[in-house]
Amino acid sequence: MGVKLSTMTIANTNHTNHGPARGPADHEVRDQIVSAATAHFRLYGYEKTTVSDLAKAIGFSKAYIYKFFPSKQAIGEQICATCLLEIETDVRAAVDSADAAPEKLRRLFKTIVTSSMRLFFQDRKLFDIASSAASERWDAAQRYELRIQGLLTDILRLGRENDDFERKTPLDETVSAIYLVLRPYLHPLLLQYSFDSVEHAPTQLSSLVLRSLSR
Amino acid sequence: MGVKLSTMTIANTNHTNHGPARGPADHEVRDQIVSAATAHFRLYGYEKTTVSDLAKAIGFSKAYIYKFFPSKQAIGEQICATCLLEIETDVRAAVDSADAAPEKLRRLFKTIVTSSMRLFFQDRKLFDIASSAASERWDAAQRYELRIQGLLTDILRLGRENDDFERKTPLDETVSAIYLVLRPYLHPLLLQYSFDSVEHAPTQLSSLVLRSLSR
Repeated sequence: MGVKLSTMTIANTNHTNHGPARGPADHEVRDQIVSAATAHFRLYGYEKTTVSDLAKAIGFSKAYIYKFFPSKQAIGEQICATCLLEIETDVRAAVDSADAAPEKLRRLFKTIVTSSMRLFFQDRKLFDIASSAASERWDAAQRYELRIQGLLTDILRLGRENDDFERKTPLDETVSAIYLVLRPYLHPLLLQYSFDSVEHAPTQLSSLVLRSLSR
Repeated sequence: MGVKLSTMTIANTNHTNHGPARGPADHEVRDQIVSAATAHFRLYGYEKTTVSDLAKAIGFSKAYIYKFFPSKQAIGEQICATCLLEIETDVRAAVDSADAAPEKLRRLFKTIVTSSMRLFFQDRKLFDIASSAASERWDAAQRYELRIQGLLTDILRLGRENDDFERKTPLDETVSAIYLVLRPYLHPLLLQYSFDSVEHAPTQLSSLVLRSLSR
């Protein structure tokens, strides 16, 4: 199974890099371009697909595509944003399905690893896009990292309020340290060197982190 | 400053991969070959240097070099082992310079990052060797990882004996989890994606780990 593209998530992110949104009809065209691009990148790879190839596949002119995306990278960024949003959606659903902060934290660790593995590596050609996004610090990847840090902050706040977690360590220091522990398992370029430990790492690391948070 | 090759560390490791040791005279020849190879790899890279190049540089025949090393990779492994031993020597000195287990752990985190950064990345051409060693699981790299885990075990045992660390969690689970936290900072392929955090990561991560060990 590869990356599913949902219209919802595309609509949610398309205003961030490419100028103001232009209404629902334009959303549909952008969606068509992104879907065709995803299919092509999967078959031929990100590097080998040109904007001309995409234009032919959809039956649009190159100029028409450029009206919606200034470059191939802009399309790649959109696909990347969608992929990262899908991981984030999985993670939020898993976190929301638990009540207590410690269990939310365990599910965050577990789900971010399984979902990232599935989305980055089941579709090797899309991994190239995620890698470019991470190594070239595409905006979509940076915003994703910030949102995961935000989610972590929310869980820690809840745990502190409910007396599940210690309150002595400054919150920002705790978030930053836990994020460093988590980072090798959400970053595609790091994750590719951790296949051996993806089975046991989420459990062991979240247990260690929970011990570090105990009062 | 690049990688220093010490006769001591070469003598300590040369019996592990290439059959039984052959006495001090052979050690000197091996040392000469490894020194010449290191100089050549630095200038021309590991990939581009051939055993013939090395033979010319030292004034030995190719056949004579093959008497001591069965392949170029065997020479690369020797350089890698020496480089890893140098990091390990730095780390052990830092750990030994503290008395209490918590401070030993802090110094382990700090020194392994600074020493790995220095040895893997100041000499970009030697980084290629370290990368091959890590990705192809050369024996030298695997033994290094085991020795670092052993050092970690010693520190944890000491801390448990002196009532600095909790004793509820099984020792092997604690070692394994802390090693997972440390791994992105000692593995050359992972470390290259963590340059942004090498300044603050050792402090933040060792503090988190120490909180997880508190009684």
